Amino acid sequence: DGGSYDAVHDASSPAAGDCCAQQSSAQHNWEMNYQEAAIYLQEGENNDKFFTHPKNAKALAAYLFAHNHLFYLMELSTALLLLLLSLCEAPAVPMLRLGIYVHATLELFALIVVVFELSMKMRWLGFHTFIRHKRTMVKTCVLFVQFIEAIVVLVRQTSHVRITRALRCIFLVDCRYCGAVRRNLRQIFQSLPPFIDILLLLLFFMVIFAILGFYLFSPNHSDPYFSTLENSLVNLFVLLTTSNFPDVMMPSYARNPWSCVFFIVYLSIELYFIMNLLLAVVFDTFNDIEKRKFKSLLLHKRAAIQHAYRLLITKQRPTGVSFKHFEGLLRFYKPRMCARERYLTFKALNQSNTPLVSLKDFYNFYEVVGLKWKAKRNREHWFDDLPRTAFLIFKGNMSRLNDTMHSTNTVVAVNGIWILVETFMLQGGNFFSRNVPWSYIVFLTIYGVELLLKTTGLGPVEYLSSGWNLFDFAVTLFAFLGLLALAFNMEPFYFIVVLRPLQLLRLFKLKKRYRNVLDTMFELFPRMASLGLTLLIFYYCFAIVGMEFFAGVVYPNCCNTSTVADSYRWVNHTVGNKTVVEEGYYYLNNFDNILNSFVTLFELTVVNDWYIIMEGVTSQTTHWSRLYFMIFYIVTMVVMTIIVAFILEAFVFRMNYTRKNQDSEEDNGIVLEKEITKEEVIGIIELYKRSSAATETSQLQKIVLQMDKYGQMSTLFLGRRSRTKSDLSMKMYEEEIQEWYEEHARKEESQTPLQEPAPASNNPLKPLSLRHRSQTVI
Amino acid sequence: DGGSYDAVHDASSPAAGDCCAQQSSAQHNWEMNYQEAAIYLQEGENNDKFFTHPKNAKALAAYLFAHNHLFYLMELSTALLLLLLSLCEAPAVPMLRLGIYVHATLELFALIVVVFELSMKMRWLGFHTFIRHKRTMVKTCVLFVQFIEAIVVLVRQTSHVRITRALRCIFLVDCRYCGAVRRNLRQIFQSLPPFIDILLLLLFFMVIFAILGFYLFSPNHSDPYFSTLENSLVNLFVLLTTSNFPDVMMPSYARNPWSCVFFIVYLSIELYFIMNLLLAVVFDTFNDIEKRKFKSLLLHKRAAIQHAYRLLITKQRPTGVSFKHFEGLLRFYKPRMCARERYLTFKALNQSNTPLVSLKDFYNFYEVVGLKWKAKRNREHWFDDLPRTAFLIFKGNMSRLNDTMHSTNTVVAVNGIWILVETFMLQGGNFFSRNVPWSYIVFLTIYGVELLLKTTGLGPVEYLSSGWNLFDFAVTLFAFLGLLALAFNMEPFYFIVVLRPLQLLRLFKLKKRYRNVLDTMFELFPRMASLGLTLLIFYYCFAIVGMEFFAGVVYPNCCNTSTVADSYRWVNHTVGNKTVVEEGYYYLNNFDNILNSFVTLFELTVVNDWYIIMEGVTSQTTHWSRLYFMIFYIVTMVVMTIIVAFILEAFVFRMNYTRKNQDSEEDNGIVLEKEITKEEVIGIIELYKRSSAATETSQLQKIVLQMDKYGQMSTLFLGRRSRTKSDLSMKMYEEEIQEWYEEHARKEESQTPLQEPAPASNNPLKPLSLRHRSQTVI
Repeated sequence: DGGSYDAVHDASSPAAGDCCAQQSSAQHNWEMNYQEAAIYLQEGENNDKFFTHPKNAKALAAYLFAHNHLFYLMELSTALLLLLLSLCEAPAVPMLRLGIYVHATLELFALIVVVFELSMKMRWLGFHTFIRHKRTMVKTCVLFVQFIEAIVVLVRQTSHVRITRALRCIFLVDCRYCGAVRRNLRQIFQSLPPFIDILLLLLFFMVIFAILGFYLFSPNHSDPYFSTLENSLVNLFVLLTTSNFPDVMMPSYARNPWSCVFFIVYLSIELYFIMNLLLAVVFDTFNDIEKRKFKSLLLHKRAAIQHAYRLLITKQRPTGVSFKHFEGLLRFYKPRMCARERYLTFKALNQSNTPLVSLKDFYNFYEVVGLKWKAKRNREHWFDDLPRTAFLIFKGNMSRLNDTMHSTNTVVAVNGIWILVETFMLQGGNFFSRNVPWSYIVFLTIYGVELLLKTTGLGPVEYLSSGWNLFDFAVTLFAFLGLLALAFNMEPFYFIVVLRPLQLLRLFKLKKRYRNVLDTMFELFPRMASLGLTLLIFYYCFAIVGMEFFAGVVYPNCCNTSTVADSYRWVNHTVGNKTVVEEGYYYLNNFDNILNSFVTLFELTVVNDWYIIMEGVTSQTTHWSRLYFMIFYIVTMVVMTIIVAFILEAFVFRMNYTRKNQDSEEDNGIVLEKEITKEEVIGIIELYKRSSAATETSQLQKIVLQMDKYGQMSTLFLGRRSRTKSDLSMKMYEEEIQEWYEEHARKEESQTPLQEPAPASNNPLKPLSLRHRSQTVI
Repeated sequence: DGGSYDAVHDASSPAAGDCCAQQSSAQHNWEMNYQEAAIYLQEGENNDKFFTHPKNAKALAAYLFAHNHLFYLMELSTALLLLLLSLCEAPAVPMLRLGIYVHATLELFALIVVVFELSMKMRWLGFHTFIRHKRTMVKTCVLFVQFIEAIVVLVRQTSHVRITRALRCIFLVDCRYCGAVRRNLRQIFQSLPPFIDILLLLLFFMVIFAILGFYLFSPNHSDPYFSTLENSLVNLFVLLTTSNFPDVMMPSYARNPWSCVFFIVYLSIELYFIMNLLLAVVFDTFNDIEKRKFKSLLLHKRAAIQHAYRLLITKQRPTGVSFKHFEGLLRFYKPRMCARERYLTFKALNQSNTPLVSLKDFYNFYEVVGLKWKAKRNREHWFDDLPRTAFLIFKGNMSRLNDTMHSTNTVVAVNGIWILVETFMLQGGNFFSRNVPWSYIVFLTIYGVELLLKTTGLGPVEYLSSGWNLFDFAVTLFAFLGLLALAFNMEPFYFIVVLRPLQLLRLFKLKKRYRNVLDTMFELFPRMASLGLTLLIFYYCFAIVGMEFFAGVVYPNCCNTSTVADSYRWVNHTVGNKTVVEEGYYYLNNFDNILNSFVTLFELTVVNDWYIIMEGVTSQTTHWSRLYFMIFYIVTMVVMTIIVAFILEAFVFRMNYTRKNQDSEEDNGIVLEKEITKEEVIGIIELYKRSSAATETSQLQKIVLQMDKYGQMSTLFLGRRSRTKSDLSMKMYEEEIQEWYEEHARKEESQTPLQEPAPASNNPLKPLSLRHRSQTVI
């Protein structure tokens, strides 16, 4: 019964609950409160707005159904299936071509799954919120269109022009796992207004120079670049990317050397000034958005914690949350956490010595809940427990370790030079068929010995916990596999030998700046990946449009009438008795299937010689095709500028941070230390025993046994997690954060006369609360 | 005699002087002190180190000789002459070719002038300081080498390989007027260490990928790009600049589509990651240097002010500087300042109501001395003094002005579209020979009317004081001249017509962001110009080296054996009865004279297709020539990255500043208000009368007359100057500046037990002082 839960403290009903409720109902209420508090905290963490909070039991059921990894995976795989369908739909990748019937059915199936997902969401949000939620509404519309089109394809048994396929990305963007992509897109759209302003300035100067250029150079008939205003505009647009640079100048330069002034001025203004201005503006906006985002996220988390706190306090003890209720919350918030960790988290939160966690302490919830707890060992080396002889051997290794470090680095450098010289000596041909070179074996042996020394010195666990050691290990392993491949002549594995130069990467840990760079790189990696994915989503849209319009328009010798004919030429001479093939190769840059389109779009992103691709396609279609290429250029320019701004921001932020905290110790992430006494453990065991949670009880009892074994009265535990960007920001904006909080509190106060920690039965946030309504429903 | 100077305050000898000196000697001492204080203040302003301070009368004479605009101009023109000589030396620009005898004599003459300049400097600095001054020593060495070479040329009557001509730049860099260039160069060198670190990372990955690429692609015999390790390295270096992008991939891509992964990974790492990292590191270093530079400049100025202050206080009144002494200082520091302005500057400095300026107030010297003072007018419009009828007319104009503003902007927009459409309609040919189009006249009339309205409304002086109005005026004037040229068919002036589209620039004042951008641009302009000049100096060095090695190596059809033969082809077909010329034009990108070299180097800076130039030259010389091009690329990369970082820094700084001061009023530069009463003016007149300064006296009497005329007892003066970067920095670093001062004061105190404002006869700074020694010499 419910009473048993209240053994540690007195029997109490939830503060935000109804005081006349029955005991059993109170127990039920508490479970509901735990769950709702956990949902609030999740919403705070994921930056979900509170108006999507489930409002009744039906909504809760739908919410729980739609918020677990199984459902997320289904979402993701459906979205991926839809996107991958474009590999099989005409124009398909030859190997993956599917019948229309097959791929249309697959599509319909995927769309039906999406309908199911959406209906779950509607159930959870309620019709009104569903309508108000913009992203979901767009998704619904796209779904509708896709559905109709898929049915049309099935009925007609032939694929029509389906540019709407480009909209399939929205299914991926809406996935729970793609939250980072959504944030990127939002940030891109927020950076747009200032970007567009400067872009207009850029285009404006382009138009002015196009008119000037037309007036100045069109009298020269040997100059094809400025013969009409349209040509003039197009060529200056291409010149903006420098892609046609000396060529566009040459005819006029040959006639009058001073005409180079026109081009120099144009490039100085457009490329070296306004383009950088663009970067400056985006960088500045980006910084600003980044800070505002951090602020709003911080305040949102705080609000979530307030909501959760209000659901956990009791009327009898309104000043804090007891462990019993905290434990109840964590059961829903982090079901996999073991009892020991729950208690340690509680202790880490609790700054005072009272048995209750106050609201002020509870604000640190997100910082503390991520910590991984481990008992602190007293022994210095991993081999302290081993027999005496082994201990001495390992101890010797340990002391030799630091000497070997430097000599190993020398060996790596020598190896690098060796590889370079060796490769330089090779003159083409099948250099793999030779025997294993002795140098290979020598270096590999040295690496092997170093690896052995290190592993034994540091212990396998600690050795592999460092990223650099892991890298060393992987490279050495690969080198060994390469050796085996060479020794046993296994041709398909030769590629491993090719990876040998990667060993040189080890040299980078020598210099502090490189280590910093690489550390920052690893920190940035998730964000970079999400930016890359964002770029790929843009690619996908453009690839679909490109395929619909330009599939099959370029082929060898297609563009003999255009100015870029040479690049598309494919001629098969016979000189003497030898066949010479003259290839322009550019016909390979086509939109014939989605993979080719991606490569073509990457080439357009790199920008060099992109006008050859543009002119090739244009000569086969209309000159309106240029719009596609120009818009693509501008879109990638936006995304790339933002990526550059992001990298800049991240590194500059990091460097500022390092400069600001120069004196403080080398940081190894967040570390917290907490001590637990035996009595405490026994107390918790009592608590769990009453709620008959057998696994937790036995776990805790192990700790007691451990303590007994070593005769300790208490154990020290270390909580550890890696430092995130949010931690860095917390420290950087330290002074401002207090202001934000005060400003926020003032704003809230002016809206509602809310007394923060006091439990008010007429709580103004109650209408949002699930508990109230669930009582009437269940 | 000296007593007369001390009328305002009592007779006093300089605090830092010898108290037993005679009266006449005291007077002389005062003049010397004024001059030395002025020199200190100049040194503070120009950031000249104090160890170059003239130490005796001979040094002072040389110092004064070497520190005036005539001498500076001589320095500059000598340096320019030496640089321009390369236009006439073989390989010369055809039109400017001079005989060897002529240009060698000119060179010797210029070098002798430099010798003279250096000897003056030696006289001023003294031999020991001269030796210690690094820049001057380098200059002396270069001068020596140049001298010998010039004589050798004269004797042999033929020019030998003179790469040392590249060092001539040092004469320009050392000019007083090129201080900004020197600062830029210093900043570039300071940014180098982190830059080189990341550059090494870049090159390291290049080498790894070159080895990988060689292993992967050299078996493909149709792939010329990776056939040897050297080719592989060169092509990946070029790929770093994206210059050969899709081409370098094509042969392997045609064979195996997955090989594109190699190139995508390479470009992603090198171009999109490390290159941006480079920018981030340089940007960060740049920011840091910029702040440190500002700090050291600020402290240097402060020290200069302290030095000057110590020379101006008297033993009797050690707490401040009287106007008499301040005026004496300004006579040397700003000889062209009139008496009224001197007094206003004094009043502006003097924050207390005592007749003395304390050291604390004196610290503001540099901020105040630049102000331009004007009597504040009481009338609202410029035409208030005109007769009644005229007043009403102008008044009417004034009120109509704001309405016309918007309509004019509409007209400009319409005109812009009109020009665009009109130009679009033209299809080549001699579009100038037609009659004057009516649209031209209509728009010009509208602009004329607007100009008239504005001039009469605001008054000609105020109208032209705004940069935007000046621009409007210039554009309208040009349009009018263009009209005349068209009407009277004056062909050489047609270019004016071509400038018509520039009118569209007016539209930019509409939007606040554009106005900000353009304002910042104007603020940046001096700095941008100096950066441009720095780049040109690098260009000059490379141009000389290029000419010495590659002059005359490329010509039409020169490179038929190389891979870039097409670009150098020049074929003269006869198709039917028409002569068709097929031109590759790249032979125009040569090093045949210095102007051509500059254009070629600009093309190399823009980077696109630079490998064609490189390969062309390489095919005619050795493959070591590539080093020249690669080094040039890296050097321009450094300079360009720093230019980008500078633009970024400037704009981000400006935007931060705007954001920080959002609430404060629109700023129109620094404005200060000071009131002078009649008695004060009469007091100063008395002072000047005694020193028999007739012009000053009459000037001041005019003010008194003016006051009498309007019956005022006092006049209000407004001091105004435009805001500089230094002012912005002052405001941005407000909080830190106090810390710097304190830290500096602490450091100084620990070095010498110096009591700041107290006049100490055993002043620790005395050894630097000119006065002490000058007494013993004269």
